[in-house]
Amino acid sequence: MTRTVVASATKEIVIGFDQPFCVIGERINPTGRKKLAAEMAEGNFETVKADALAQVAAGATMLDVNAGVTAVNPNETEPPLLVKTLEIVQELVDVPLSIDSSVTAAIEAGLAVAKGRPLVNSVTGEEEKLEAILPLIKKYNVPVVAISNDETGISEDPDVRFEVARKIVQHAADYGIPAHDIVVDPLVMPIGAMGTAGQQVFRLLRRLREELKVNTTCGLSNISFGLPHRHGINAGFIPMVIGAGMTSAIMNPCRPQEMEAVRAANVLNGTDPNCSEWIMTYRDHQPAAAGAVAAPGEGGASAGGRRRGGRAARRSAG
Amino acid sequence: MTRTVVASATKEIVIGFDQPFCVIGERINPTGRKKLAAEMAEGNFETVKADALAQVAAGATMLDVNAGVTAVNPNETEPPLLVKTLEIVQELVDVPLSIDSSVTAAIEAGLAVAKGRPLVNSVTGEEEKLEAILPLIKKYNVPVVAISNDETGISEDPDVRFEVARKIVQHAADYGIPAHDIVVDPLVMPIGAMGTAGQQVFRLLRRLREELKVNTTCGLSNISFGLPHRHGINAGFIPMVIGAGMTSAIMNPCRPQEMEAVRAANVLNGTDPNCSEWIMTYRDHQPAAAGAVAAPGEGGASAGGRRRGGRAARRSAG
Repeated sequence: MTRTVVASATKEIVIGFDQPFCVIGERINPTGRKKLAAEMAEGNFETVKADALAQVAAGATMLDVNAGVTAVNPNETEPPLLVKTLEIVQELVDVPLSIDSSVTAAIEAGLAVAKGRPLVNSVTGEEEKLEAILPLIKKYNVPVVAISNDETGISEDPDVRFEVARKIVQHAADYGIPAHDIVVDPLVMPIGAMGTAGQQVFRLLRRLREELKVNTTCGLSNISFGLPHRHGINAGFIPMVIGAGMTSAIMNPCRPQEMEAVRAANVLNGTDPNCSEWIMTYRDHQPAAAGAVAAPGEGGASAGGRRRGGRAARRSAG
Repeated sequence: MTRTVVASATKEIVIGFDQPFCVIGERINPTGRKKLAAEMAEGNFETVKADALAQVAAGATMLDVNAGVTAVNPNETEPPLLVKTLEIVQELVDVPLSIDSSVTAAIEAGLAVAKGRPLVNSVTGEEEKLEAILPLIKKYNVPVVAISNDETGISEDPDVRFEVARKIVQHAADYGIPAHDIVVDPLVMPIGAMGTAGQQVFRLLRRLREELKVNTTCGLSNISFGLPHRHGINAGFIPMVIGAGMTSAIMNPCRPQEMEAVRAANVLNGTDPNCSEWIMTYRDHQPAAAGAVAAPGEGGASAGGRRRGGRAARRSAG
């Protein structure tokens, strides 16, 4: 069974097919958050701290930490800022971290200070990237997210993306890095722009699990980009990718609808033993709070459960 | 490609792997609804009418119609009551119907009056049942729900349930009934009582689709029986069964959370072309109505979509 071990200073988490879905909180990322970028560039980490606490409180398994506040001279500016951000976050919360940067020097600096066993986010199938990142993965003995694109870009053909993933796993093996330390991101396209984006990912996830036997992740909310009521699409996507074999996602744990979908899928996938987490979270749930409208003459919610039983009891009548 | 055709007086619907999920409204069923049973027994069909209209308005593809108000002498009382109920429903709404009874005489009487091409619900793998129902299926040239239990009851072993389904398909073939007119119900157990219930069903659905090539259905809400916040479990189960190959379900379409899950899964499964149904339904959706809580410094909803793009744009910096 594939097990990817990540850890904070004191807490070890396993990512695996038989484990609860690993929710990697995406909020500590200034890319696309101008206000946060400006704050971090000024040395103000109040939003970072608030996001760290809120995401862990909401149920994040791990936190992604990105400090890419500027495209200007990032090789010089990003390493110290990422180090500072990682130190602040691991001081505040005790969950494994994902060191997220496109700057190799920042990843290396982050690895030097991160406690436990962080995840590195990410390497791609590009030769230059593989040669820069894989030695660090080997040196620090940590797992890495492998994004299935290469020099030719992101293929629209899922079989090509699978081959990129296979190539990364093989390259890693050449460095002595085991497949269970590669977490493949099959790349999720917006379904609004590409109608087959869902089916592509489901197929890729099955192949990655059955053939490469690797854990997987994705930038989950990409799927709903451009559509109205994105949380509804995301919440439907989560059980489908979990059913297809995905074991983690980089997502916003502060969204109750998405986290409910994760918890339900864990129950249904058999990774929430005795439904304990579900029952603890929702035992006092008020239907109205979720926007549910009671049907007239309600009783329907449990009638479904009795329906077959009722019929079975009357079977002799037929 | 497996196509199960059902029809009302004027409207034809195809159940199939490449079709939108077929929602069979479960509400017109007095089993477990004492008040409805009492009304129907008295010849009062006001709730039946209201439930027919409400379910179609909520997006039901078909309506299940059951008139099992009593276990006392059902062979005499149920046929005329089912006929009356079917006539009232098909007078009011123009969707295909599912004739639901454990009383063979009631199914036969229903078949004689139902317009279009109704679905019969159901036959099992019991010899007596097969011999009673299959000739009617052949005579009226209609599709039938095949429940995968037999004289020995409901097996906890999904492979045994698969063999029961296979047996029903073979028996049907002996009568000249094609496999595409058999809609198999693999039987959904409550996950709160059997932790493997989800995985069992997913596995069964894949086998039924790949090996028997049949359409499938289930009493959907059985899965959440006994758990708090059942709608959340149901809404997570829907995308998972659709991803595993299920093509219809007997469920309550008046539940917004479940119907949202159906619509999202259709988008993700590629059966809502251009996301038209989704966009039409949710273009004016207000997040607050779904219980979503905006995270501080929001922008996160679309930040996910930009995240990878942002990284890609900065890739040369690495």
